[in-house]
Amino acid sequence: VYIAEGAEVSCQIMRTLDIVGEKWSLLIVRDLLRGSSRFSDFRESLGVPTDVLTARLGTLVERGIVEKRPYREDGARERHSYHLTPAGEGLRGVLAALIEWGDEFDPAPRGAAARVVDAETRAPVSLGYFTEDGTRVTAIAIAPGPAATKPW
Amino acid sequence: VYIAEGAEVSCQIMRTLDIVGEKWSLLIVRDLLRGSSRFSDFRESLGVPTDVLTARLGTLVERGIVEKRPYREDGARERHSYHLTPAGEGLRGVLAALIEWGDEFDPAPRGAAARVVDAETRAPVSLGYFTEDGTRVTAIAIAPGPAATKPW
Repeated sequence: VYIAEGAEVSCQIMRTLDIVGEKWSLLIVRDLLRGSSRFSDFRESLGVPTDVLTARLGTLVERGIVEKRPYREDGARERHSYHLTPAGEGLRGVLAALIEWGDEFDPAPRGAAARVVDAETRAPVSLGYFTEDGTRVTAIAIAPGPAATKPW
Repeated sequence: VYIAEGAEVSCQIMRTLDIVGEKWSLLIVRDLLRGSSRFSDFRESLGVPTDVLTARLGTLVERGIVEKRPYREDGARERHSYHLTPAGEGLRGVLAALIEWGDEFDPAPRGAAARVVDAETRAPVSLGYFTEDGTRVTAIAIAPGPAATKPW
């Protein structure tokens, strides 16, 4: 947790990392996007200790990224499955940026495990930026917003 | 650190988080993009303990995100300043994705501290995805790459 209790922070980077910046959080989101929904799936996929996984899922539920739903298999006790909320689905853009950075600056020796594609046609896509009138921009900067206290 | 010593990981999300996923790392990159370059600047801006900051800067240097340069002020001992490498500059896209997610799903009560703009005209821009022929795509998915071991 980056932000002190009660502090009002305007920096979106700090705010977003306060929600999903803990170790494993974005990898849990990755697994949820892949269709995993059960505690045992995450534990197996990530090799993360049970208590850490419980804590991370708890934070993600509390912060509105993940929704917990009860289910019961025949003869078993009630368990919960985990599902992304719309805010959680929105993190696909953050994961896409991490993937694209990796492709450019840290390609894996055996090739990439993931690629970003058009949801409909499955054609590969690249990240870009466009202005309000739809013009594509070649280089971006980050600039102070209305609540900035420091220059960029 | 997410990746076990000696492990060869193909997932770009895991690889990238292994480099910049530690607490404070992306905020140090944010400060570097804002023009901060000195240890004392980061310490003051982030309020992070000296030993943690030393460790994070060390990792960022070791992983090729930050370059350390010696400088000396009159009468003072030699110190180092910190500067983004091209790979570090490339993280602007990851920060832009965090900003955009925050704007959409967690807007700050007092307004945003940062906005993403065209580097030349300073017009505000939004993130988008483009196919090879430049067509803008409305919805993306993440799909298995050549080295995938699991479906998406």
